Amino acid sequence: MNGSLEKTVRAVVETVLATKNELTLADAEALSAAVERRAKEMGMKIVTAVCDAGGNPLLLHRMEGAFIASCDIAANKAFTSVALKMPTSDLATLAAPGGSLYGIQFTNNGRIVIFGGGVPLVRGGVIVGGFGVSGGTAQQDTELGEYAKRYFTEALT
Amino acid sequence: MNGSLEKTVRAVVETVLATKNELTLADAEALSAAVERRAKEMGMKIVTAVCDAGGNPLLLHRMEGAFIASCDIAANKAFTSVALKMPTSDLATLAAPGGSLYGIQFTNNGRIVIFGGGVPLVRGGVIVGGFGVSGGTAQQDTELGEYAKRYFTEALT
Amino acid sequence: MNGSLEKTVRAVVETVLATKNELTLADAEALSAAVERRAKEMGMKIVTAVCDAGGNPLLLHRMEGAFIASCDIAANKAFTSVALKMPTSDLATLAAPGGSLYGIQFTNNGRIVIFGGGVPLVRGGVIVGGFGVSGGTAQQDTELGEYAKRYFTEALT
Amino acid sequence: MNGSLEKTVRAVVETVLATKNELTLADAEALSAAVERRAKEMGMKIVTAVCDAGGNPLLLHRMEGAFIASCDIAANKAFTSVALKMPTSDLATLAAPGGSLYGIQFTNNGRIVIFGGGVPLVRGGVIVGGFGVSGGTAQQDTELGEYAKRYFTEALT
Repeated sequence: MNGSLEKTVRAVVETVLATKNELTLADAEALSAAVERRAKEMGMKIVTAVCDAGGNPLLLHRMEGAFIASCDIAANKAFTSVALKMPTSDLATLAAPGGSLYGIQFTNNGRIVIFGGGVPLVRGGVIVGGFGVSGGTAQQDTELGEYAKRYFTEALT
Repeated sequence: MNGSLEKTVRAVVETVLATKNELTLADAEALSAAVERRAKEMGMKIVTAVCDAGGNPLLLHRMEGAFIASCDIAANKAFTSVALKMPTSDLATLAAPGGSLYGIQFTNNGRIVIFGGGVPLVRGGVIVGGFGVSGGTAQQDTELGEYAKRYFTEALT
Repeated sequence: MNGSLEKTVRAVVETVLATKNELTLADAEALSAAVERRAKEMGMKIVTAVCDAGGNPLLLHRMEGAFIASCDIAANKAFTSVALKMPTSDLATLAAPGGSLYGIQFTNNGRIVIFGGGVPLVRGGVIVGGFGVSGGTAQQDTELGEYAKRYFTEALT
Repeated sequence: MNGSLEKTVRAVVETVLATKNELTLADAEALSAAVERRAKEMGMKIVTAVCDAGGNPLLLHRMEGAFIASCDIAANKAFTSVALKMPTSDLATLAAPGGSLYGIQFTNNGRIVIFGGGVPLVRGGVIVGGFGVSGGTAQQDTELGEYAKRYFTEALT
């Protein structure tokens, strides 16, 4: 195969691979397990949630003893990060009184969360899903969300 | 009533009935198409929504790739502009903490939106429907809402 | 390019094209317009709805004068046909008292519709979205749903 | 109390505390993994859900490609089996028109599921949680629910 043709074929194949971005349940389990290990090291009990690119649930895990309320919060953080294509920590200022999106937290039947812990999951330059964690302070949840984003990028893309 | 007068009255009544202000689906499609063209020029992916004078949906269009969350937001902006008879941008200050309408965002099962992008549609001095757009920053959405209002006034009344 | 290589490249390209199934707003508008024309011929006023493969809305159109209730019904028919991967007319018997899925209509926060008018939209062997129509009798809606499925297959795939 | 008796009582209390029946996330993961393996053998794509004795979620897993609607259904089956302390398959007849519990499907905000696939999880004679599965026919889901119950009894109690 000559060099020019090889490049073309390679580019096409890469495009195919790039469009095969769908998040699997196995991805979701590996990601949640990693964040749960980190939470244990920090002495936390958490709920983790993963949704796909359409905002539909793939996984929810509640460590025994974690807040009951964290189920909805983690799932909604995952949803929010996909539905608005940004980490939920960005909304903390945008949706605060005086911020340009103040009020967005009331518009989607209570599914928009405006504090940290939700992050979009990006693979091949495309948002393929969202991750949400709830269980600690907003700062701890934000930290675990960032950990999840790094872990996904390094281990699952 | 003599025959000639009867004819005149009948003609007037028919004209009134024929020019009644009801918004049509065709109006809604023309308006959304215009705002979508403008959004493309601005490099935006948006959701547009049109409701009638009763606040009931006539149209929802989501450009592929637009925020999932924007569906509820655009529809609720259209509803809000009819339900409160003002542009949603006016609510940004009125419904802020300290504003005279603070709290209104909690009263209608999450259907009141308090940032720009929703405008009442006026024809013959009467509000005949509402338009909502979501997809950009609050400023961009406000701008597109104002564009929609102008377009409706110039081309569809 | 020799014949064998050409075949390989062609196969790869076809795979790429096959994975580009995403439904566009333009697809949704063309489909709804066709069904609306058909409904007018039948003397009906309808609501049409299209959702993507994740069940999220792409389009809602209410012909002026159509039932207000049809907005939720059409949108939920589109959702149901994607969420359960079958036409909603199949659920009419499965979810009836005595049917094996009796009760499914109560399980998804009222979003499962169990009478005709919702159909999955298939392109390249994959469900890429759902279509829902509401406005007539169950029989008329079912008929229009089947018309939509045929039209999509013939004109939009 | 003399020293020897005190020791005995203390030991009993400690044993009770140590053997308390609370379902763990690890239990839920093991159970879901077993049912997912079984589903793959049967060629099915499913959603599994586990809740604790309070009816609150511990786990939700959606295999990629499973029905979107199955998320709510599986979670609600787990809830129902705990909330009514019986397998959901028992409700298929009890809640049918003419059955003694007809109407129960309308009482809990859409959380009561009345076809098979939900089973209570029993440990030490006590219901410690619920399991729900959705993805196939009512018969397949019922079969997988019974498999889950057997697996839990044999491997996780």
